[in-house]
Amino acid sequence: MQTLIWNTLTETEKQQALTRPAISASDEIKSAVENIENLVTSHGDAALFELAEKFDKTTLESLVVSATQIEQASKRIPAELKQAIQHAKANIETFHRAQQAQSVDIETQKGVRCQVVTRPISRVGLYIPGGSAPLFSTVLMLAIPAKIAGCKKIVLCSPPPIADEILYTANLCGVETIYTVGGAQAIFAMAKGTKTVVKVDKIFGPGNAFVTEAKRQVVQKGTAIDMPAGPSEVLVIADEFADPDFVASDLLSQAEHGADSQVILVTPSQSLAEAVNVALEQQLASLPRAETARKALSHSRTFIAQDLAQAVEISNQYAPEHLIVQTENPRALLDSLDNAGSIFLGAYSPESMGDYASGTNHVLPTYGYTKTYSSLGLADFSKRMTVQELSPQGFKDLAKTVELMASAEQLDAHKQAVSIRLAKLA
Amino acid sequence: MQTLIWNTLTETEKQQALTRPAISASDEIKSAVENIENLVTSHGDAALFELAEKFDKTTLESLVVSATQIEQASKRIPAELKQAIQHAKANIETFHRAQQAQSVDIETQKGVRCQVVTRPISRVGLYIPGGSAPLFSTVLMLAIPAKIAGCKKIVLCSPPPIADEILYTANLCGVETIYTVGGAQAIFAMAKGTKTVVKVDKIFGPGNAFVTEAKRQVVQKGTAIDMPAGPSEVLVIADEFADPDFVASDLLSQAEHGADSQVILVTPSQSLAEAVNVALEQQLASLPRAETARKALSHSRTFIAQDLAQAVEISNQYAPEHLIVQTENPRALLDSLDNAGSIFLGAYSPESMGDYASGTNHVLPTYGYTKTYSSLGLADFSKRMTVQELSPQGFKDLAKTVELMASAEQLDAHKQAVSIRLAKLA
Repeated sequence: MQTLIWNTLTETEKQQALTRPAISASDEIKSAVENIENLVTSHGDAALFELAEKFDKTTLESLVVSATQIEQASKRIPAELKQAIQHAKANIETFHRAQQAQSVDIETQKGVRCQVVTRPISRVGLYIPGGSAPLFSTVLMLAIPAKIAGCKKIVLCSPPPIADEILYTANLCGVETIYTVGGAQAIFAMAKGTKTVVKVDKIFGPGNAFVTEAKRQVVQKGTAIDMPAGPSEVLVIADEFADPDFVASDLLSQAEHGADSQVILVTPSQSLAEAVNVALEQQLASLPRAETARKALSHSRTFIAQDLAQAVEISNQYAPEHLIVQTENPRALLDSLDNAGSIFLGAYSPESMGDYASGTNHVLPTYGYTKTYSSLGLADFSKRMTVQELSPQGFKDLAKTVELMASAEQLDAHKQAVSIRLAKLA
Repeated sequence: MQTLIWNTLTETEKQQALTRPAISASDEIKSAVENIENLVTSHGDAALFELAEKFDKTTLESLVVSATQIEQASKRIPAELKQAIQHAKANIETFHRAQQAQSVDIETQKGVRCQVVTRPISRVGLYIPGGSAPLFSTVLMLAIPAKIAGCKKIVLCSPPPIADEILYTANLCGVETIYTVGGAQAIFAMAKGTKTVVKVDKIFGPGNAFVTEAKRQVVQKGTAIDMPAGPSEVLVIADEFADPDFVASDLLSQAEHGADSQVILVTPSQSLAEAVNVALEQQLASLPRAETARKALSHSRTFIAQDLAQAVEISNQYAPEHLIVQTENPRALLDSLDNAGSIFLGAYSPESMGDYASGTNHVLPTYGYTKTYSSLGLADFSKRMTVQELSPQGFKDLAKTVELMASAEQLDAHKQAVSIRLAKLA
């Protein structure tokens, strides 16, 4: 990792050093995704079978996974992995149940009752990518809050062949229907609905560039999505009290995600920075995904800050998805940390804990979006409506105010709606 | 208004009857907005002066409204209108203060502490359109929650000349800087920042097709916006106990907003429907914006439902921005109402009350987005981060679960981050 001393950088260099690489979809991807959309729109289910042949090299018998297939998958999973999944599920449930929105029900003035009420989003679609590693942990992160929020329909799409762990976890978490549909076509099928695939109101979950572009496109046509996507990233704030082996292991768990992963260390301690570099080399030696991790590390950076306060400033400016704090007193920094998806305090809170089982959600804003977007939570599976009910007296007491304001905005019918009622109350 | 009996419609007719008109921006608008973006990017402040000449026919001396100008504007506003604005402000503050997010701080298992903490969005930009009617009420709806949330920078853009009421209200609500900048150029100036205009993280507020398109474009480049835009709409559920004059006045307060306003009445009572039509004609006679309202009404519809349960179903399917319920017992329907921006219960809760002063926010999802988006509230000016801190014992108790899951997902560095710590603890 390249080491830069923050105070020696110009403003422009500082900005550049924290700038993420551009991630807009290529024209090829955009037009491929548009073609897929047209196919799904025109041919529905038939397009989904056809695209499974083409992209997944699979001849499907059905677009829906049967109860028998789920049962068989479940039998093939080792008992101790099942226990682990159930353990994680329990923690994630506990944390997301605690996020139930408090309802608001107050009188803003006598006779003017105002409320905030929360309703689940009715139909949600979860997308889980395929590939060699089965991302069943993401099934937990999406299906558990959907269930707790009370979404009426929870469906899941994943490309064939769907790993046993995904089938088991989806079923365990109450997913109603699992479709053997992947890629951009899965996103369009859930956004529009086909004969087999149910139309949903909001789509959640990660995916490749095609899936991301499809999600971007369906948003323009009225389907909501969880949040914008970008490469995964970690920033570690550490001081001379941190264990360099721990810090290196955390940087590597991010780096192994992909060559485009963003990994940043910020420390006031030059000697820690050097020790971490040594530890990285040691640990890389035994890592199966070392090549991927090395690529990610090649564009990663260590910043030497003048003190922890400056380290916090750098972190707030970068606004990382994952923020690990390994300092003598990590909790002391919490109040000054403004922009992050999930924060890991202390030596024994590696990112892996939150990725799987501490209870927090691992679906987090990336690419600087932590400045404005939230960590995925129960709120993302529901929405708030406001309610007002005025008594005749409450109405009377507020009437003149509303009439004056409506007049000043030249909205006479708004005023008339008040005046007509006032006249009948007189 | 055209009257349709719901049960006589086919499924396709029902869907068509609830379909909103398409609202995508024309290619002319898109390319005009792109040109504006290029100008603002290349020339910054100079482009803003130039575009004020071109679009607002105004030669600006400064892009920033001075304290003296605000003071003078304030002096020109009648005392009773000031009082009305302050009255509304008090109610809106009361309601939005009650929306402070509860923090979550729990142990999901012993030694595994998980939290949700909330932070204000640092810099927010409010956009208020120009035109003959000064929309100072929208200033209240945007600036009050921004201030309560604790946003550090609150700025506002509006095209010249900015109405006295807007300047007064913005200043009253703690807006730090008011820029005399309107249109798409205001959106790009706030998204990118210029020498004078501060760069913001999130942009709020309504606007014409150019502003809407500019907001859509800045989202693609990392600036957040409040919510997607669409024409304003109301759906009224009424039964034979409703006062047809009241219902007509509510339909008209929506219809006067613009020819594209959507107005729907759903009632099980044919006689109420007829009485409302008569009342509409009577009230239109005295309405300055009658022509606009008539255009909106010409594409509006009354649905005769078989009962209130079916009326609720129709409303949930349409998912209106404003939902007014004027029935014998309106609160009895609340639990079954799923999709709406703001709900107005009873004869004395006309939309005008919420538009101005009951305390609820009048910035609401339109165009069916109430199925997935929330009424604007305090939450939109802040974001949630999660935090976890594990004690050595908590870490040990969770370690095996995480190792098993990371192994099953073939993420070895994730597992290693756990194993390395376990080894040192042993």
